[in-house]
Amino acid sequence: MYPNDGFRELDREECLRLLAKAAVGRIVHTRQALPAVLPVNFALEDDGSVLLRTSAASELVRAIDGSVVAFEADQVDVTTQSGWSVVVTGGATVVTDAAEHERLVRTGPRSWVPAPQEVFVRIAPELVTGRELVGGRTMYGLDLTS
Amino acid sequence: MYPNDGFRELDREECLRLLAKAAVGRIVHTRQALPAVLPVNFALEDDGSVLLRTSAASELVRAIDGSVVAFEADQVDVTTQSGWSVVVTGGATVVTDAAEHERLVRTGPRSWVPAPQEVFVRIAPELVTGRELVGGRTMYGLDLTS
Repeated sequence: MYPNDGFRELDREECLRLLAKAAVGRIVHTRQALPAVLPVNFALEDDGSVLLRTSAASELVRAIDGSVVAFEADQVDVTTQSGWSVVVTGGATVVTDAAEHERLVRTGPRSWVPAPQEVFVRIAPELVTGRELVGGRTMYGLDLTS
Repeated sequence: MYPNDGFRELDREECLRLLAKAAVGRIVHTRQALPAVLPVNFALEDDGSVLLRTSAASELVRAIDGSVVAFEADQVDVTTQSGWSVVVTGGATVVTDAAEHERLVRTGPRSWVPAPQEVFVRIAPELVTGRELVGGRTMYGLDLTS
């Protein structure tokens, strides 16, 4: 979130309400000392935790387990130049508790690309920020698409 | 790009062709030692450079000028569980050459939220990677949405 850049900041409650409507977000992390970003489907828990499900053998898991990551979802309408973006920032950890893993197998997010052995990764909602742009074109009375 | 995760890797040419169709992407960087991500509109140059236009006073410019960043665009269809994601990784630099700045004022990307003083930021296409998922549901014959 960058202050004074023409966007409206969203509070935590608004952020989580919008995030609950999204099916896909992007996990932002560091890979081999470079910024990396990957779209993933996810589920949102009541406390704002973000749950991912992925192959236990995936490089993504090795890259993010125990690290602080950002998870972003957005919805932008290019025609009206309006939309929102929400970011959950916090530690990512693989769910190791067997009972919780079993619960998530039943109730957690589904894999789009199922793997023989899957794990759940939880991102703690330590920081929840968001911003909204309401009709850039209308706000300024300009046709910015020309 | 993570190998062996069920997605098809895209070559540089395919990546740039897809990126050219997108109007909005996400700039992935580091802010106050934390991963950060922000949707922005952009223009693509012939060599794959990504051009952003933003307020000269923005915190984003201070955060990314001279840093290596990732710029991601994607298109995901939740119903068919298919889509693509392209990432351009490279150094971000503010365009300081006056003649080039003038050229970009005429031909470069437009601001959705115009500011009194604007700058252009170019992200060098040092690394261009992408992946495609073609119908996760169809590929596996599973209904993953239940």
